[in-house]
Amino acid sequence: MSTHFADRFLAEAKAKGAPVCVGIDPVLSKLPQSLKPLKADGKLVEDNARVALEAIRVWGLGLLNAVAPHVPCVKFQSACFERYLWPGVELYHELTVEARRLGLLVIGDAKRGDIGISAEHYAAGCLADAPYTDLQKPLGPDALTANAYLGADSLEPLVKLAGAQGKGLFALVRTSNPGGDALQSLKLADGRSVSDAVADIVTQSGAGHIGQSGYSLMGAVVGATKPQDAIGLRTRMPQALFLVPGFGAQGGTADDVKPCFKSDGTGAIITASRSVIFAYEKPATNDWQGAIAAAAADLNKQIRAIL
Amino acid sequence: MSTHFADRFLAEAKAKGAPVCVGIDPVLSKLPQSLKPLKADGKLVEDNARVALEAIRVWGLGLLNAVAPHVPCVKFQSACFERYLWPGVELYHELTVEARRLGLLVIGDAKRGDIGISAEHYAAGCLADAPYTDLQKPLGPDALTANAYLGADSLEPLVKLAGAQGKGLFALVRTSNPGGDALQSLKLADGRSVSDAVADIVTQSGAGHIGQSGYSLMGAVVGATKPQDAIGLRTRMPQALFLVPGFGAQGGTADDVKPCFKSDGTGAIITASRSVIFAYEKPATNDWQGAIAAAAADLNKQIRAIL
Repeated sequence: MSTHFADRFLAEAKAKGAPVCVGIDPVLSKLPQSLKPLKADGKLVEDNARVALEAIRVWGLGLLNAVAPHVPCVKFQSACFERYLWPGVELYHELTVEARRLGLLVIGDAKRGDIGISAEHYAAGCLADAPYTDLQKPLGPDALTANAYLGADSLEPLVKLAGAQGKGLFALVRTSNPGGDALQSLKLADGRSVSDAVADIVTQSGAGHIGQSGYSLMGAVVGATKPQDAIGLRTRMPQALFLVPGFGAQGGTADDVKPCFKSDGTGAIITASRSVIFAYEKPATNDWQGAIAAAAADLNKQIRAIL
Repeated sequence: MSTHFADRFLAEAKAKGAPVCVGIDPVLSKLPQSLKPLKADGKLVEDNARVALEAIRVWGLGLLNAVAPHVPCVKFQSACFERYLWPGVELYHELTVEARRLGLLVIGDAKRGDIGISAEHYAAGCLADAPYTDLQKPLGPDALTANAYLGADSLEPLVKLAGAQGKGLFALVRTSNPGGDALQSLKLADGRSVSDAVADIVTQSGAGHIGQSGYSLMGAVVGATKPQDAIGLRTRMPQALFLVPGFGAQGGTADDVKPCFKSDGTGAIITASRSVIFAYEKPATNDWQGAIAAAAADLNKQIRAIL
């Protein structure tokens, strides 16, 4: 098996039937009722990080087992763990290790970006399989999201590490939030948009790292809510895998994400988060793992149907 | 005393004599010889996070005590701590608490940026004085660096938290690294540059949060190595404090940073990192705390001289 991230992803997507990903963004108040840590007065325990994290841990382990048969990939939202400071970061790594053990590819959604010398440290902390013998199995994710506002030299240490350890990167090009337009859609004097210019930095950074599949280890985040832009970006970045968040709860539909794929049905990883991980809310059910598994299977089916 | 970050910074800068900041970017191989953790063969211990962190902890505490008389502010580079995973994040918080106890203002240099719902979590984890009773004194920094590529709605939760807790923000506008030009210097069709456009998002986001000093809680990162751009940005963002990294080792001189100030000598926070925190390397000395203190005093003197 190739150790190139893009090749690994394509193989796993084929095995599971669809190039989809579940975004894991834990929020204490949205955990299943049976797992919520409550005070005597029925209110949520919000002032104890470890109590909150234990509930998130049980949910996260159940969630991983529920989605593993249906998706090749999960994406952990780092912010949701970092809000619980260092014990949150520990749980982020524990769930990363567990997801990899279950055969899932893991994307760490941490959107890091800094000047080269600091990007080296982020590569070591947020992407590498760290070498520390005193920490239990400190495996990093298989891929990491990154912010390219600081230019190619800020991506370089991440690319280097990814190349050495068979990992991947996804730089933010066109994000799914409404406010992203304010900067990313602006027209440059040379006719490109700002997101086009970032796309060109991404292409340049990933050029030396193409796998057997023809895709680079350097991919791009392109929101599901921006189908018009996706058409141009797909042509612009033929060797980039697109990580496409915003499917489902954020409003992106199956039709919206179609332009993120090439005609051969490869090129994108469609990510749904809230619509899968909180699927037990609507319709409300106590069988939260069953509801999550069904939603993950449905995600798989929806995307398979358009390819 | 006003609880507005900009007002607090200006008062502390006045008390210490200059608006300067020491950037704390710990690197194991650059610790003083007496603190380096070594194996029996004389090589650095790089495969044990807690052993590395204990050395960084001793250095960091000594460093804080050495610089506290000379500077109003320190900036911790999150990447250098995150490379040691969760125990690194714990030390980051421990040193943040210690710096604040010494009367220093603390900037967390984590460059976070994500869509609104995730930015809320980053606000809670990377900027807030967290409420967790099970973690020892989990004070956050006084201010945080942020990445505005995702637009105003990605800054909003950070601004809201900063306003509520008397804290500050610095969005990346013009960075000090060579590669920053590739995107930030591009001309838009409307005549602005990309960094001008980000500056305008920063101005808009901070408009409702001006302190008694006339400065907003929303500041801007403007690298010391870009003096020509600083002139235009200073006029463009009259209410933004500039956080100016890159002084010293990265090549920025006292003349270079002058355009970051207004004529009244306010408006910028000049940050030196390697030239202060590793000052014991050149000329080599065993009195590492003395060398750091002298370099911090010199930073203060150099900036005072141009104001």
